[in-house]
Order: sequence, then structure tokens, then C-alpha cells
Amino acid sequence: MSKSNNYCVIMAGGIGSRFWPMSTQKYPKQFQDILGTGRTMIQQTYDRIRKIVPSENIYVITNKEYVSLTEQQLPEVHSENIVGEPMMKNTAACNIYMAKKIAAKNSEANIIVLPADHLILKENIFLKKAELAFNLAEKNDYLITLGINPTRPDTGYGYIQFVDKKGSEYFKVKTFTEKPDLEIAKTFLESGDFLWNAGIFIWNVQSIISAFESFLPEMTQNFDSCEYNSDEEVPCIDLIYPKVNKISIDNGILEKAKNVYVIPADLGWSDLGTWNSIYENSEKDEDQNAAKSKHILSYNSKGNLIKLKNQNKAVVIDGLENYIIVDTDKALLICPRENDQHLKEYIQDLRAVKNGEKYL
Amino acid sequence: MSKSNNYCVIMAGGIGSRFWPMSTQKYPKQFQDILGTGRTMIQQTYDRIRKIVPSENIYVITNKEYVSLTEQQLPEVHSENIVGEPMMKNTAACNIYMAKKIAAKNSEANIIVLPADHLILKENIFLKKAELAFNLAEKNDYLITLGINPTRPDTGYGYIQFVDKKGSEYFKVKTFTEKPDLEIAKTFLESGDFLWNAGIFIWNVQSIISAFESFLPEMTQNFDSCEYNSDEEVPCIDLIYPKVNKISIDNGILEKAKNVYVIPADLGWSDLGTWNSIYENSEKDEDQNAAKSKHILSYNSKGNLIKLKNQNKAVVIDGLENYIIVDTDKALLICPRENDQHLKEYIQDLRAVKNGEKYL
Repeated sequence: MSKSNNYCVIMAGGIGSRFWPMSTQKYPKQFQDILGTGRTMIQQTYDRIRKIVPSENIYVITNKEYVSLTEQQLPEVHSENIVGEPMMKNTAACNIYMAKKIAAKNSEANIIVLPADHLILKENIFLKKAELAFNLAEKNDYLITLGINPTRPDTGYGYIQFVDKKGSEYFKVKTFTEKPDLEIAKTFLESGDFLWNAGIFIWNVQSIISAFESFLPEMTQNFDSCEYNSDEEVPCIDLIYPKVNKISIDNGILEKAKNVYVIPADLGWSDLGTWNSIYENSEKDEDQNAAKSKHILSYNSKGNLIKLKNQNKAVVIDGLENYIIVDTDKALLICPRENDQHLKEYIQDLRAVKNGEKYL
Repeated sequence: MSKSNNYCVIMAGGIGSRFWPMSTQKYPKQFQDILGTGRTMIQQTYDRIRKIVPSENIYVITNKEYVSLTEQQLPEVHSENIVGEPMMKNTAACNIYMAKKIAAKNSEANIIVLPADHLILKENIFLKKAELAFNLAEKNDYLITLGINPTRPDTGYGYIQFVDKKGSEYFKVKTFTEKPDLEIAKTFLESGDFLWNAGIFIWNVQSIISAFESFLPEMTQNFDSCEYNSDEEVPCIDLIYPKVNKISIDNGILEKAKNVYVIPADLGWSDLGTWNSIYENSEKDEDQNAAKSKHILSYNSKGNLIKLKNQNKAVVIDGLENYIIVDTDKALLICPRENDQHLKEYIQDLRAVKNGEKYL
């Protein structure tokens, strides 16, 4: 395998309202150091993949609004590799766009697609599995995903059912199931032949383009019409985007294709999709408070997540158990950890108040 | 009574740590609009007394540190009337100082002494009682206080026992009692001949100087040595202050003098000494939340006090009952309302952490 055929697409288009008020439309989660490690989520994603993909082969696709933020945070990425989508169109469109763009540079490219905002604790395993996937994708017409061994019947994740072939490092995928209800999630967990879909995909550029031709032919034709890596690319994309369907790569391609394979990977993975998952992945003190700020005094308080934008602010809490406390310049959120799924409601209500948009 | 003999001394030297983090050493309570009415406490005090005391006869005594803050907030007060104490020495020293200073201008002055940080809801009654007190002080060698009819056995206030003389508007004071325990406070309340000491005093300048000569002769001699309202005043005061005792006007004079009178006054008064008293004196919504900010969304939350320094900040609270939430640039406090007396402990602990002073 020639290293220069390894490419990466970091998908960084989300607006991350689930992390309000830390994550806002102007400054979403992937551009924040949400765990307080010193590097933002997109920087962590870049740092990780940089070890097996040359910098000039790393692309970021994000909303136009976030192009300059991406440039600031990833100065090592060539600016022509930072691609701004004119509008949000879910993940199928950006994948065919990036496949076409990269194919125009290197028709033998193998691409790993990475969400910009996921946590991976076990980097070595990730890199090993990614190398394996690159190898498989280079030699086979496979669409490959990394699958996470589920540890609980989570109803917020997609599940991948695989066909077991003893002793193998990868398996043929039988079905994809998005966000099952709790009963079904429990049977998935018990059966042992389901993995979580981490949204990490690896394919040869020809494999993914041919899958798009089969399952999303209209979308693919639209993207055929542009001349990539030229001055005409941006105006052409601006014309195409309003026409293409909003559909995910999972729904549009992976659930339909017959050549999908999964590599089980124990990555120490979380999609950090909720404040609670941030709590779970944060260091905690002896009272199980997760509070990575210098001057926090807590009294009679346990199990709280405290996040401050301004690390030079003191916090005194008394009598709080299992709360999320997030403080930024623009907003203060205090809610029970078990209510973190109410965030959408809070944001809707805030949007409805006069000038409420400015807080989002 | 000639109106030009009416003088006022506003005492504004407190550092108000009981309102941390809103009130800080740099910017204490009396300089804040703690109830959100549009005027700070000292401005309210000025506005109120201005109706019966000419502006040029109104003095403020505060710590040197707060002189410029006072000048900013009270531009109508002559700058030579804003007096900075070189250090905190409790209320006896500042009262003899101001009496001497005013006597040097007008030996017939009648002075009303007002704390800068108290709430008075019934301004008309206050003005009526103050006029009565000015009249009494002009004609009699009386040291006069306004006494508040107690509504609960509060252990945080001083109590004044008076000798009842039916039908009078003022009574001779029998005893002063500072901060009684709960049992004693209850008997005070039941007996009906106790009033709260609001720290509002009215006296002729000769009466108070002669009381100081009797009960604090050493302190008085010290203050005799300065030439007031001249360039020598400040250096002289700077020399005297380190020598004088820290004693309150109550302990040093009023508890000893035999010519103390009290005017019962139903002022709608509070010393706003705790966050809870701020809560009690604030407007509340239908959930009994006191939150005078524009964009506060509350869910399953009742009885909370929410104070924000930045009125353009959104707040979302969920599942909080009877909490105090105070947010400033430097600190965030969340504690049960019933624990507001723990504030001193929080502040002590914060002082103990490295660089903790900067939050206070």
C-alpha cells in the first residue's frame, strides 16, 4: 500500500445544539475543547489521523460558515482542502462531493471518513483498525465501517448487524438499524452480533462512487457536472447543492449496498452526543463531580458536571446533586443530568423569545 | 427650623461580603443596583434624603478606595463632601469625624446619619419621621434613632427597648441589645416594647460631640486636633485614624448615653443583609422565582433568586427549588436559599485557595 493513496475526509458540518450553551451556531462542538484536554475535537481528530494519512491528503468538509474557524484550528491543513458546503444536506451529499473531488486528484485514493466531534480513547487500536481498513479497501470493492462493541442498550445510536465468520478481523454486514427502541436495543445487546455504528467509513474512491451510481444516481449525476479543484468548483457546487436530497450516507448507500463490511473495534469511543456522555468521559473528583476548572468549591454536592467557558471564573456550588452546570459569556444552563435530552426543548423555547436567537 | 441647618451623613464604608459574588471588595453592595430598580443603593439613599436636605449639606463617608466610585454615582454631591477614611474603624470614629467636620462649617447643624445600603419602601413615612427627628434634635439635647416595628424574631438585628409613654410619637430608650439569640428575640417580639435598630440616627452636632466627650473622650481629643475643611484635614486624619479604637456608635455612645430617644417608624425597611432578604424584597413570578433578567427560562423550578451582572445573558434552569443563583464575570454561586449564611464560609475557603483573593 502506498501511503500517498491514503486520504481522509473529516466531516465537521454539525451545529451541535446538544451542547448549548457551550456549543453555539457560531462556534459548534467540534471546534471546542469540550473535555478540557487542551485540543478541540476537530484538532484531536486531525492529530489522530495525521499519523497514517499525509497532511496534504487530509480534507475537511464543513459548512461555509465554519471554514475560517477550521483554518484557524487546523493551520497544517492546506486551505484548498477545507471545503465549505453552501447549506446543510446531511451526509450523502458531502460524501459524493468529496469522493468526486478526491478522485479528480487521485483515482486510486482510499478514503477514511471521520466525524470531527467524536471521542476515541484508544488511539493505537484506532490506527491499527484504520490501517486494516485501508488495506481491505485498496484490494476489495468493500464499503467498510468501524463497529463499536456495545456496552449498554443505548437507544441513541445506530446498530450494525454482522454475519459472524469465526476468527476474522472483519465481517460482512447484514443490516443497519437506526436508533432502536429500548426493548430492541436490549435484544441487540444480548444477541452479540450487533455493533454500534461509529460513523467512521473507509472505502476506495471508485467503490464509493460506484455505490452512489447504483443507489443515488440522480445525486451522483449532479455532482458529475462539476470540474473539481478548479475555479469552477465553488460556483458549480453552489448550483448543485440546493437541488440535492437531504439523506444520510447510511440511509442512502450503506443500508442498500451488498458489499458493506464492518471491523469490530474497541476504540474507547463515544460520539459525545449529550452532556451526560461528556460527564461520563470526564475525570471526576472524590465526590464524582466533573469540574475541570481551577477555582471550584463544592459543598454537599455530588455527581455534577461543571463546564465554564471562562477558566478564570470561580464557582461555588452547594446542595446540588447530578446537575449539569454550563456557563458561557452568553448563557448559563443549570439542569439535572437526567434531563439533558430536554436541551432541544430549552433551545426551542429560547428561540421563541424576542431576540432569543442571539443566545444559540 | 431653617432648612439649611439640615445635614446628612451617608455611611458607605462597608465591603458587603454577604453579597458575594455580586458585591465584591472593589464594588460593594451600596454601589450596586442589587434589587434591579435602576438606581444603586447609595443613589436611592441620596435621592430619598435629598428631598429634605439640601444637596450641599449631604456628606458621604466611605473608604478611600470608594471615593471615586461615590463621585461617579453621586455627581450632585460636592466632591469636598465625599470623605475617604484611610482604614476601617467601625462607626464611632466616622461619626465623630463627620460631626467635627460639619460643626466647623455650621455649629447649629442637625445631622441625620444614614446607612448607604438599606432598603426603605415607604419614603413618605421616612421623610415625615426624619423631619420630626430634625425638629426634636434642633430643640433638645437628644440622640435620636428611628426604630422599626419587628415583624419576626430576627437574630441578626439589634433591638431597642423603649419606655412607653402613651400617645407620643417618640420614646425614651431604655436599652440596646445587639443580635439576641432566638429565645430572647421571641420574648422581645412578644413584649411589644422593642424595636429594630435601623442604624438611622439624628442629632444636633453639639449633642453628639458632647456625648463623645463624655463616653469616648480619648477618641474625641484625637479628632479635636485637626483643622477641618482645610488642606490639613486629610494628613491629620491619616495620622489620627491608626490610633483610634474600632468601636461602633451603638456600643460606644448610644448604649451609654441617657438622652437617647427612638421614633417608631414603619418604613418598609430592610437592611438587605442576606441574599434571602433580597429574595424577599424582590418581585416574583408565578413560580415565586425572583429573576429580573430578560431571558430566563425556568422549568420545574420554584422559589429561586437569580441575579446576573450581565443582563444580556440567557439563563435556563431546570429542577431547582429555593436556590440562590448569582452570576458575575468573576464568579458563579449556586446555593440553597436556606444556606445563605454559609456565604462567609464559602468566602473564607475561596480566600484560602491560591489567588482566591481575586474573586472577592
